[in-house]
Amino acid sequence: MNDKLQTFLNPQGIVLVGARSSVGFGYSIPITLKKRGWGDKLFMVNPKGGELHGKTVYRKVADVPDPVDLAIVVVPAVHVPTTLADIGERGIRYVIIETAGFGEAGEAGIKLQEEINQVVLRYQLRVIGPNCIGVVNNNNGFCSAEIMEEAYPPGNISIIAQSGVFGNILLDKFCLLNLKVSKAVTLGNRIDINECDMLELLHQDPETEVIVLYLEGAADGKRLKETLKAVTADKPVLVLKSGRTESGKRATASHTGSLSGSDSTYNGLFRQTGAIRAESLAELIAMTQVFSTQPLPTGNRLGIITGSGSMGALATDEAVTCGLEVPLPSQETIEKVRAEAPDWMNVKNPLDVGPSGLFGRALEAMTSDPKIDMLLPIITIPYAVYREIITTPAIATLIYGEMRKIRESAPEKPFIVCVVGHDQVKADIELMVGESVPVFESPEIAVKALSALWSYRQRSHPAD
Amino acid sequence: MNDKLQTFLNPQGIVLVGARSSVGFGYSIPITLKKRGWGDKLFMVNPKGGELHGKTVYRKVADVPDPVDLAIVVVPAVHVPTTLADIGERGIRYVIIETAGFGEAGEAGIKLQEEINQVVLRYQLRVIGPNCIGVVNNNNGFCSAEIMEEAYPPGNISIIAQSGVFGNILLDKFCLLNLKVSKAVTLGNRIDINECDMLELLHQDPETEVIVLYLEGAADGKRLKETLKAVTADKPVLVLKSGRTESGKRATASHTGSLSGSDSTYNGLFRQTGAIRAESLAELIAMTQVFSTQPLPTGNRLGIITGSGSMGALATDEAVTCGLEVPLPSQETIEKVRAEAPDWMNVKNPLDVGPSGLFGRALEAMTSDPKIDMLLPIITIPYAVYREIITTPAIATLIYGEMRKIRESAPEKPFIVCVVGHDQVKADIELMVGESVPVFESPEIAVKALSALWSYRQRSHPAD
Repeated sequence: MNDKLQTFLNPQGIVLVGARSSVGFGYSIPITLKKRGWGDKLFMVNPKGGELHGKTVYRKVADVPDPVDLAIVVVPAVHVPTTLADIGERGIRYVIIETAGFGEAGEAGIKLQEEINQVVLRYQLRVIGPNCIGVVNNNNGFCSAEIMEEAYPPGNISIIAQSGVFGNILLDKFCLLNLKVSKAVTLGNRIDINECDMLELLHQDPETEVIVLYLEGAADGKRLKETLKAVTADKPVLVLKSGRTESGKRATASHTGSLSGSDSTYNGLFRQTGAIRAESLAELIAMTQVFSTQPLPTGNRLGIITGSGSMGALATDEAVTCGLEVPLPSQETIEKVRAEAPDWMNVKNPLDVGPSGLFGRALEAMTSDPKIDMLLPIITIPYAVYREIITTPAIATLIYGEMRKIRESAPEKPFIVCVVGHDQVKADIELMVGESVPVFESPEIAVKALSALWSYRQRSHPAD
Repeated sequence: MNDKLQTFLNPQGIVLVGARSSVGFGYSIPITLKKRGWGDKLFMVNPKGGELHGKTVYRKVADVPDPVDLAIVVVPAVHVPTTLADIGERGIRYVIIETAGFGEAGEAGIKLQEEINQVVLRYQLRVIGPNCIGVVNNNNGFCSAEIMEEAYPPGNISIIAQSGVFGNILLDKFCLLNLKVSKAVTLGNRIDINECDMLELLHQDPETEVIVLYLEGAADGKRLKETLKAVTADKPVLVLKSGRTESGKRATASHTGSLSGSDSTYNGLFRQTGAIRAESLAELIAMTQVFSTQPLPTGNRLGIITGSGSMGALATDEAVTCGLEVPLPSQETIEKVRAEAPDWMNVKNPLDVGPSGLFGRALEAMTSDPKIDMLLPIITIPYAVYREIITTPAIATLIYGEMRKIRESAPEKPFIVCVVGHDQVKADIELMVGESVPVFESPEIAVKALSALWSYRQRSHPAD
């Protein structure tokens, strides 16, 4: 069944109902589709007919020629029921309704939503929305949003969001962070298609390796439980769930008409199914950075190398709180570092190298240590010192080591970097380590993301 | 008594013991002091004598002419005891020992630390350190650190940190965030001066309005309790405390030789004394942004204006969890916004204006609402839309309102902004709102910082 839902992400032909010559979705969607290489597959409908962006506007859905298997609806809310009937009559089964003003908008809206439900049942339509911006597929360029970047580099992350704006701004943020998105689907009021349908679709999608889910409330708790269980056996699902409090629930009710259950119920559901819950937007983004770029660890032993004991202590606190260990490195590592270390240096874990200049050597030793499963170098150089000393990339390499090579020497270990302090140092280190190593600004969130990786590893390899 | 501790921040003359011509603290501190306008007040000592940076190097502390009331010690650890005796004999009472390798560095170090304790007692020295970088005073330029920016703009924030690097990187980070620091003091192993002495000093300092404290363990729990109580009655103290876990405690022990008590004891201590504890470095920074720029709220009612229901829900969840309310605005506000709003818009709180273009109008109405005590506008525009629509500052003003004016219309209300999505939007909005309004990337941390402001208001105005 889900195979057909592929139509939403890869239609043969699209009809846009509500195309118009004044500013709005009906004006901009054709421009966006053309820019993204889908102009030839689009047909437009408006009762007034005429032309838009140099192409025919059909007066009725019935007039649109083949092939067309997906409809995008952006007409005013009151016209949606008759529009859906026209679409059903034309034999189109897949519909994205972007118009708002239904279940989320008071009594009149709820009544209107019931009306469209009837039409959906009558014609057996499969519907995303209403009150959404539909889908973005960066693999083939297809996109139903009003305005979208011409091209995002496609990657291994897919997003499911109840909120249209949420999906959109995640795309922006991820792109800036060098995170590459395969598909994004925004669900809105979910009169038909819900997060479970999309989880199943993305479960089967070979281009999706990490699924990011923003949820205001489950459409069907029992099905969500079964679906998450099945999906997380193969792919991590990172969840941000709002409506944790009564006030938050009221906010989501008026947003996408969601009824949220109790927060502890959701906590239990995510824990039992192996989904990873983020406690904030920042945490969701950090986890996505780590899951989309790092391997799963084979153990929970974290090695911390730092130039500041304070950062080592903060990272250690967070690691232990989140279920990681920060054990002594092996005797070999200790001896290796000790041999070069000045007297004042404590060779342990977290390994505070202070201003010894041994950061790179210590990182190398810890990375190759069989007693360490994942690495967190924390760089903490005051900018005035940095500017004075690190005048060339060669000097940076001398001090911090050949980070890219060190990382590549242990591809089976998660390896992320934290740079606390000046943005310029962070930017330089990002270049130095390359795109496959996320660089964080704060030790706690970096550690939290690593611990999520370990949690998921235990879920997906329970027998280990 | 504390008046004399002023000497650390505003000495009449300084002797640097351990000046040297090879790279290190002894070489760089004179350069830094000169750059910051303190070159004429510095005398240098090294048994070899000669010249450094064009100035005389005295062979003995005894040879240094008047006036000199502060010594900075950077000689190797083993020479520190005799150096301190020389300083005591010369009649200098205030000393910053930057050398490491004492209580934090194993048995030999502990023994050496005991030795210097004896000298300190004998000469009744007042000592900051060892194992620190001492002080930075941006009001008069004085600074004992190896390398420091020539000038940071002075402001209302002062920092007390056990860790030298921590103080240094906070200075960098704060500067990038337009946060202005008055003084920073790093304490190291605290053989004499501890956080309580410095809290008392900054309590009396008219240039300090917000105190940021990084603590690994209290030097004297009972005194810390009394001191914090006294200070927080007048000035907020924001605390980041590491050593929350056993492993974290071990890390701090080897860092500054701190013995940390149980974490719940500290939680109780901070709660009872009205100090505000941050749970992470990111939270400490966010709180500093809000405390140093915003007034204390007169109530806990938060108004949220957003273009995305999802962000409104996430912010509301966090607000309620942290003890804030997100109540309905007044009838007048509702009617004002309702009059212009499209049908699909729910006029409530959080106020999701969607793509109505009413962000500024709604923000204005909420800001002037007597039922709202603090404001959090959350801007969530996809970058492709932003680039297409917000082509001039005038258009930004049309949509988001004259944010600077709106903010200034209610100077008694905390007002901070959140921009979720593209960095360019954030940068533009930062220019639009001006330096006195912090702009965050994530709704949860913004709300947490506002709630800390409300907690502190209750502490400092218990009778209200």
